[in-house]
Amino acid sequence: MNRRMVVFLLSRIMAFEAILMLPSFIVGLIYGEAAIAALCFLPVMGVLLLLGLFGLKKPKNMTIYAREGFLTVAAAWVLMSVFGAVPFFLLGNVFPTAAGGEFVSYWDCLFEIASGLTTTGASILETVEQLPHCILFWRSFSHWIGGMGVLVFVLAVMPMSEERSMHLMRAEVPGPVVGKLVPRMRDTAKILYAVYSALTVILIILLCAGGMPLFESVCHAFGAAGTGGFSVRDAGIKAYDSTYIHVVLSTFMLLFGVNFSLYHLILIGKWKNAVRSEELRVYGGIVTAAVVLITINTASAATRFGITLRDAYFQVSSIITTTGYATVNFDAWPGFSKMILLLLMVMGACAGSTGGGLKISRIVILFKTVRQEVRKLLHPRAVTVVRIEGKPIHTDLIRATMVFFVLYMTCLAAGVLLLSLGEQDFLTNFTATLACLSNIGPGLALVGPTENYGFYSSASKVLLSFEMLAGRLELFPIIMLFSPLTYRHRSK
Amino acid sequence: MNRRMVVFLLSRIMAFEAILMLPSFIVGLIYGEAAIAALCFLPVMGVLLLLGLFGLKKPKNMTIYAREGFLTVAAAWVLMSVFGAVPFFLLGNVFPTAAGGEFVSYWDCLFEIASGLTTTGASILETVEQLPHCILFWRSFSHWIGGMGVLVFVLAVMPMSEERSMHLMRAEVPGPVVGKLVPRMRDTAKILYAVYSALTVILIILLCAGGMPLFESVCHAFGAAGTGGFSVRDAGIKAYDSTYIHVVLSTFMLLFGVNFSLYHLILIGKWKNAVRSEELRVYGGIVTAAVVLITINTASAATRFGITLRDAYFQVSSIITTTGYATVNFDAWPGFSKMILLLLMVMGACAGSTGGGLKISRIVILFKTVRQEVRKLLHPRAVTVVRIEGKPIHTDLIRATMVFFVLYMTCLAAGVLLLSLGEQDFLTNFTATLACLSNIGPGLALVGPTENYGFYSSASKVLLSFEMLAGRLELFPIIMLFSPLTYRHRSK
Repeated sequence: MNRRMVVFLLSRIMAFEAILMLPSFIVGLIYGEAAIAALCFLPVMGVLLLLGLFGLKKPKNMTIYAREGFLTVAAAWVLMSVFGAVPFFLLGNVFPTAAGGEFVSYWDCLFEIASGLTTTGASILETVEQLPHCILFWRSFSHWIGGMGVLVFVLAVMPMSEERSMHLMRAEVPGPVVGKLVPRMRDTAKILYAVYSALTVILIILLCAGGMPLFESVCHAFGAAGTGGFSVRDAGIKAYDSTYIHVVLSTFMLLFGVNFSLYHLILIGKWKNAVRSEELRVYGGIVTAAVVLITINTASAATRFGITLRDAYFQVSSIITTTGYATVNFDAWPGFSKMILLLLMVMGACAGSTGGGLKISRIVILFKTVRQEVRKLLHPRAVTVVRIEGKPIHTDLIRATMVFFVLYMTCLAAGVLLLSLGEQDFLTNFTATLACLSNIGPGLALVGPTENYGFYSSASKVLLSFEMLAGRLELFPIIMLFSPLTYRHRSK
Repeated sequence: MNRRMVVFLLSRIMAFEAILMLPSFIVGLIYGEAAIAALCFLPVMGVLLLLGLFGLKKPKNMTIYAREGFLTVAAAWVLMSVFGAVPFFLLGNVFPTAAGGEFVSYWDCLFEIASGLTTTGASILETVEQLPHCILFWRSFSHWIGGMGVLVFVLAVMPMSEERSMHLMRAEVPGPVVGKLVPRMRDTAKILYAVYSALTVILIILLCAGGMPLFESVCHAFGAAGTGGFSVRDAGIKAYDSTYIHVVLSTFMLLFGVNFSLYHLILIGKWKNAVRSEELRVYGGIVTAAVVLITINTASAATRFGITLRDAYFQVSSIITTTGYATVNFDAWPGFSKMILLLLMVMGACAGSTGGGLKISRIVILFKTVRQEVRKLLHPRAVTVVRIEGKPIHTDLIRATMVFFVLYMTCLAAGVLLLSLGEQDFLTNFTATLACLSNIGPGLALVGPTENYGFYSSASKVLLSFEMLAGRLELFPIIMLFSPLTYRHRSK
């Protein structure tokens, strides 16, 4: 293993995190929180920049392979969380009044920033409105950073050989296949970030136009863009009694759940290819079906039909994209609607989007593989092929997809088993693990949309933080971080 | 499709079911319930024998392929359940006092016999002790029939070509690989039934020796042998305050969860090969680990350590083999122990045993495939092979195993979604579906070990009956029964 190169890359990323904290510091200055901003952010920024010194000198041998790629990505995300939690910790312990008594334990802070970076949006906070602007900004900005991926950003600004960047990109970008949009990886990363930024800015403008204050618009746009779900209001999006805001956010959440390569296709004029995408069609079909079923199931004489439909649309968009915003306490919905939401939590959005979960394209591959197996059993001598958009899929991809499904269920089961060592009931533990593994945020019962994760023990919070990281990085990097296979010297 | 041959086979099986009802009728005569036995069994036996007339004339073309094999097995099990429910229905409606007010609705009766034949052991009955002996015998005997498989029995007594019997056997015998023990399929079926009968007789003798009355010993031995779980006592096995009986039953449940081909190996002197079986070792390891963890987790000052260990051993044996007997209300256990039981419910016993669930050998294949995938990702150019007992496994078997896992989870999710249309809570619906799909019986919450399934609506009971059948036949036959792919004419 090329340890020097791993250290070099990690140092660069640490320095980069210091730069990522700068906007939050500036927000603090703008809102007259100079003392808080200085004390919460500057010390950790200093430490991060010092660590960045290890990245000044390029190692002689810059070759990395898949193993180094996975390890770097996993370690980078763990370290980003470890240092990203420090501003919260400093606030909670240096300015306990400003923190409203929250953020006292470091594990709470780690949970919160892991939840932010992995775009989960699960919070340990009872209330958020008392927090200073700079901290709220850092909390929401972490969604935006984590949504598209830190290393994708690094790739966009750091020159690197093709093969090397591919190893990093593959480990960070969600989805069964990582396609290059353009021949050079670096340009691909730039295009992704350009689309991402443009959509975010449009959303901010639309939210402001609906009467949402600028700061809140920016933070909620970060939450929607990264499919995170942190809010700067205690009541979340429910605080805004505006159908316009609900519908704009629902629609943009859905847009951020689409494979970003489709936006690139549209930009270069190939919109026909984009519309023909099988994953997009299935995604649209699932969203429509879920909205219709939930609207019928939750309809009641007490509520106007329009409101029922609006809430169903918002909640389906929020859950399938794994954002986790709530305009209604869906934990009080009938069992059938709750079960639909649980299934959407497992599915997640499209590959190559900022959403979590299994991803629609994997669901499509799994479904078609099962159908092929039924055909094979019925007609053992027939030759059958699994096709997506008319093109046959390689058996390696099919196997990888099924392995991912098995591993996802294993992580879910293992998470629930370990959480069960604590006091909480099965539904709470099950949906908490699911909501963290799929990077959603709220679950049901004690972790429902009107609740928070504060009551879990520190050990449970660390476990859930790792489930979030595992989910965001699509399981393998985090599993490799702990697997002896990774560190074993291979014999020929 | 060769419809004539399917009808011929089904007719034979219907006549065979009439013969299977004979012992229950005789039990009725022995216990002085001649009127009840005559009225409950003779009418349906008559109808079954009439249907059997269609099987008198052999069709000219006796060729069947995989498709006919799957359809025959699925239809046979559905029909056996439909007619097997009639004695219960007649008792409930002709002798309401003897039935204690139970068995009034036909759907209740269908649920009960489907639960019996599939060796699930989930019951709609509040109490059983008031029921006549002939009915209790039929209920428990259905476990014994269903455990080893109806068609395996038919194969043992009906001469058939090798290829044809293989198509039927493959659809009915659980496990990823159906191995012939001896060159002729028919002899294999005979050996399986001989081992099965011998073990059952030994268990009956041991239970009688422990002071359990003969009738109860026979019925409970049927329940353990088929890994079913119906009891003839309201309190179940808890009714016997005897450590001897608990330990004998625990041990025999475990024995019936072992691949029966291993017993054949031992009989022909190859016991070394039997002990070397990787599945057997993993099975033993999982049982030991689960017993240890549950003993530690449920230990309390109020109960003697020996009793805690005994109950843990009994419950682990009962759940991993998917029998479902209970000597303790495990629904009141701590969350961690309950979660272990839920995982055992998903796993199930060994392939080629009478147990349900995913089967240990599939778990082993899945685990090794995941490990291989991690290796492949770490070293993309390395050639890796999944091996069981040193022998490489064919990729077809790996794919089939993963497809089975995906399908199992899909059936579980679909079942819970549909059950959620009713009133019950998530944990009840989830564990009810799991307990039916894995052919266990009791779940948690409202379907816990001290409860029953009577409260579910008729529609839910039919749904759960199909989950039981799907679980017993390892999903594909029942799915094919409803799939348009099965009936579609294939174009070249």
